[in-house]
Amino acid sequence: MDEKDALKKEIIKRFGTPCVVIDLDVVEANIARAQQLCDTAALANRPHIKTHKSPILAHAQLSAGATGITCQKLGEAEVMADAGITDIIIATNLLGAAQSGQLAALQRRLPLKCCADSAFTLTAYASAAHAADRPLDVLIECDTGQKRAGVETPDAVLALATIIQQSQWLNFAGLLFYPPLDGWQETQIFLDEVRAGLSAMGLEIGIISTGGTPNLANLGQLDGATEHRAGTCIFNDRMMLAAGMASPDDCALHVFTSVASRGGEARGILDAGSKTLTSDAGGLEGFGLIREYPDARIHKFSEEHGFLDLSDCRQQPQVGDIVRVIPNHVCVVVNMVDQLVAVRGNDIIEVIPVAARGKLV
Amino acid sequence: MDEKDALKKEIIKRFGTPCVVIDLDVVEANIARAQQLCDTAALANRPHIKTHKSPILAHAQLSAGATGITCQKLGEAEVMADAGITDIIIATNLLGAAQSGQLAALQRRLPLKCCADSAFTLTAYASAAHAADRPLDVLIECDTGQKRAGVETPDAVLALATIIQQSQWLNFAGLLFYPPLDGWQETQIFLDEVRAGLSAMGLEIGIISTGGTPNLANLGQLDGATEHRAGTCIFNDRMMLAAGMASPDDCALHVFTSVASRGGEARGILDAGSKTLTSDAGGLEGFGLIREYPDARIHKFSEEHGFLDLSDCRQQPQVGDIVRVIPNHVCVVVNMVDQLVAVRGNDIIEVIPVAARGKLV
Repeated sequence: MDEKDALKKEIIKRFGTPCVVIDLDVVEANIARAQQLCDTAALANRPHIKTHKSPILAHAQLSAGATGITCQKLGEAEVMADAGITDIIIATNLLGAAQSGQLAALQRRLPLKCCADSAFTLTAYASAAHAADRPLDVLIECDTGQKRAGVETPDAVLALATIIQQSQWLNFAGLLFYPPLDGWQETQIFLDEVRAGLSAMGLEIGIISTGGTPNLANLGQLDGATEHRAGTCIFNDRMMLAAGMASPDDCALHVFTSVASRGGEARGILDAGSKTLTSDAGGLEGFGLIREYPDARIHKFSEEHGFLDLSDCRQQPQVGDIVRVIPNHVCVVVNMVDQLVAVRGNDIIEVIPVAARGKLV
Repeated sequence: MDEKDALKKEIIKRFGTPCVVIDLDVVEANIARAQQLCDTAALANRPHIKTHKSPILAHAQLSAGATGITCQKLGEAEVMADAGITDIIIATNLLGAAQSGQLAALQRRLPLKCCADSAFTLTAYASAAHAADRPLDVLIECDTGQKRAGVETPDAVLALATIIQQSQWLNFAGLLFYPPLDGWQETQIFLDEVRAGLSAMGLEIGIISTGGTPNLANLGQLDGATEHRAGTCIFNDRMMLAAGMASPDDCALHVFTSVASRGGEARGILDAGSKTLTSDAGGLEGFGLIREYPDARIHKFSEEHGFLDLSDCRQQPQVGDIVRVIPNHVCVVVNMVDQLVAVRGNDIIEVIPVAARGKLV
């Protein structure tokens, strides 16, 4: 018998399927574990709320010891500020929000910390800070190998720091890193060179931030780092299983989904498709781990259906069965829904709004 | 000079980027074209609203001549019913909504047409109809080669039709097909065999529905068909360009996105990532067509960034430039946002809520 049968029946009766469910016991254990890893490395913990987009869960992270939060969008920061959270880094070039007036409006309410990797962004930030009549703290985003955003040389950091130093509307607040898993030594070399240059300019680095859930395994390896921002670890997902950062029991979020159709011996269809589980494969083969049928493969999506290859399954699910899926990438799944159903074990506790969902700007 | 410069400046000033924009002139032309194709084939037009999820646009389709609408989720039908739309087919096995009470609640308000491909679903439907105290019209979903949902043999159709016939809470309303592009002949054979069997049972087929925007090219090929449901054609997308169903000027929806960062000669980063454009490749190479830089390749996403490979571009975009992207798959992009900004040419007209977005059940 499936120990989750009673919960599944209650979920479909109250919410239908698909339904995105988090277990608060696992959430709390995950929050505590990330906090302890930061504490042990003597780093401030600044969780990235892009994963849960929920003020309730952000407050749980702060209560467990986090210093502040990281957002990816100005709109996310607005929602968190509305919930009384005041220590916020927004970890991207905010070109849209700077030009639409939203950055100025929020900066007028509370002092934000924003990130930049270009002179263009700094100019937009200075205008927004001027409009807000409050200087803006800026971290320079540095790329030490990910080939994502961020300046790629210490000289480029110093050039931007000079612009910040010369602007009456910008304060130099530090450096934002996302070191590649095997790139912490290169990051140290980069940081040391930047530090020497900034020191010669008379600038102190306030915050030195590193990021990423897989990098929780590397905390302590960057001399001078002051804080870490990790998002996914609050829930974990199939990517974190593949990275060895979590076991299935550390996965707090499951998509409860019904087998809506079969079709021959080896086929099945879930009522969760690309509009629920998303097409984000995260570099893995297939989409999602079905807890009850780990040998079933979700190999394709239509918008509201997940297509199962059951050819490796000894036991096969039947139409009407409800299964629990750990998604490949949990952050994008949360972003699909307006609410998370929160349980403890087999008891439904509350419904948590994903209040900062769908913020484009 | 870019003829869209003035509009881009207005969009970023009023809404920031990324911003999902539809051109109503193109939308209206697309609606008229689909209607005319159905009219010419003497078929009722029942557009699938999964693409736009907007009562305003559904009413535009009805005003142009559509008979009714198709929804994929009960929650979508609720929103459309709230907007006064009464002739609705819901084109999936509704297991979650049937068991959560939502199907019964809506069926109590207005007579729905639902689809099924299993006895399990029919049992759930009969319970819901009983709870609603109103018999439910049911179409049997048939699979003639797509390997999606649907029964795969005429005998299986007749078996389900027998169950429907014997239930006091179910009415047999017809057949739902989604013929493969090259499978209309097989669909005809299937239909003819089903028709003979149903006739022997004393059952008339009311609705014979076909589906899909690419199948608009095949209308008239199924003798007996009564209506067609197409979704994507209201906006079109890069998949429809690839299928030869649309030109770029027929694409009504663009994601306006800023170049947020560069990084070397061949790299660039858009402020639209997998949480805006989605990872739905739709079988194509790369994600999205950039109108201003058709040789730029969006080759990868992070959640809020689209990564550009500019190595084939003679001219390259700079940080702060705004570009217009036709997404690979428009239906999933609309599902990411709460509103569409509607323009005509270079004028912003209104903001259209995506009122039926994010309906899981």
